[in-house]
Amino acid sequence: MRGYTINKDDYLKRLRRIEGQVRGLQRMIAEDTYCIDVLTQVSAVTKALQSVAIGLLDEHVRHCVRDAAVGDDPERADDMVTEATRAIERLVRT
Amino acid sequence: MRGYTINKDDYLKRLRRIEGQVRGLQRMIAEDTYCIDVLTQVSAVTKALQSVAIGLLDEHVRHCVRDAAVGDDPERADDMVTEATRAIERLVRT
Amino acid sequence: MRGYTINKDDYLKRLRRIEGQVRGLQRMIAEDTYCIDVLTQVSAVTKALQSVAIGLLDEHVRHCVRDAAVGDDPERADDMVTEATRAIERLVRT
Amino acid sequence: MRGYTINKDDYLKRLRRIEGQVRGLQRMIAEDTYCIDVLTQVSAVTKALQSVAIGLLDEHVRHCVRDAAVGDDPERADDMVTEATRAIERLVRT
Repeated sequence: MRGYTINKDDYLKRLRRIEGQVRGLQRMIAEDTYCIDVLTQVSAVTKALQSVAIGLLDEHVRHCVRDAAVGDDPERADDMVTEATRAIERLVRT
Repeated sequence: MRGYTINKDDYLKRLRRIEGQVRGLQRMIAEDTYCIDVLTQVSAVTKALQSVAIGLLDEHVRHCVRDAAVGDDPERADDMVTEATRAIERLVRT
Repeated sequence: MRGYTINKDDYLKRLRRIEGQVRGLQRMIAEDTYCIDVLTQVSAVTKALQSVAIGLLDEHVRHCVRDAAVGDDPERADDMVTEATRAIERLVRT
Repeated sequence: MRGYTINKDDYLKRLRRIEGQVRGLQRMIAEDTYCIDVLTQVSAVTKALQSVAIGLLDEHVRHCVRDAAVGDDPERADDMVTEATRAIERLVRT
């Protein structure tokens, strides 16, 4: 069981769509599409990926961190918040 | 009491330093500093601000969300995670 | 001819690697990988995509905008800078 | 003369407003404002700063890079594009 388990199918569907968009980017480059149009599409894919990340993070805090917090291992809950913060840092810095 | 209360003085010190950096940017513009050097400094200030944001977010989840989670109001804890996620979204999207 | 034409094969190779990474993400979700590990990998893919974007943008300014600037259509060069700025804005805001 | 010279007063005005917003953040922390409200305001300031950066970058490419491109020093123009790309990279990565 993971924080995202209940929405697993939704995440798989979104990632398959993102995979298709990345293949679309290859086609655009292969067909010499105008740079700015390729860039617009790269931004759309990046946005879709970050949306997946934000969803995973939400469910991680909502389920995993909370379960640890109400459980009998407060130190584990603390470590999980630290992990989540580092994940947010990586997201913000990319 | 807020999540950041124990580090309040540290946050105030960092924000005063950021204020000084913003004044430094005004001086750079006033003195016709080379565009790229101004940009490097803008990035430094942005990074410092995002670092403040990540710290506040960490302490919000670590203290406020957790207190709500172990408290007797699970719905409040849920709302707080949603608020935190929206704050992360705003951070990632800026 | 596009700004990225001389590096077309390199971009295609990078995008195929990114496609593979997105498939890897699907496997991670399918196998219930720990949320934080999925997030680390999402950040890696986002970073790779943004690296592609920054490369395309560099070559767009280096070749397309410059060709327009030295050409006989200064208004076109102006429009191209505006387009590039909007592309940067979309990159920074995602 | 810099790329931003014609809009110098506008940039100074925006940076003074940002300075005021940073002081506002200090007040919020001093008065124990709710974490999420502080975060919303930090995002607003970050956005304002990035808007300044995007403006400076636009004018750098529009004026400085173009002047170099139509001038007699193509190598300088090339170096300026590289500098601009690194500045974009720092913006995107923060």
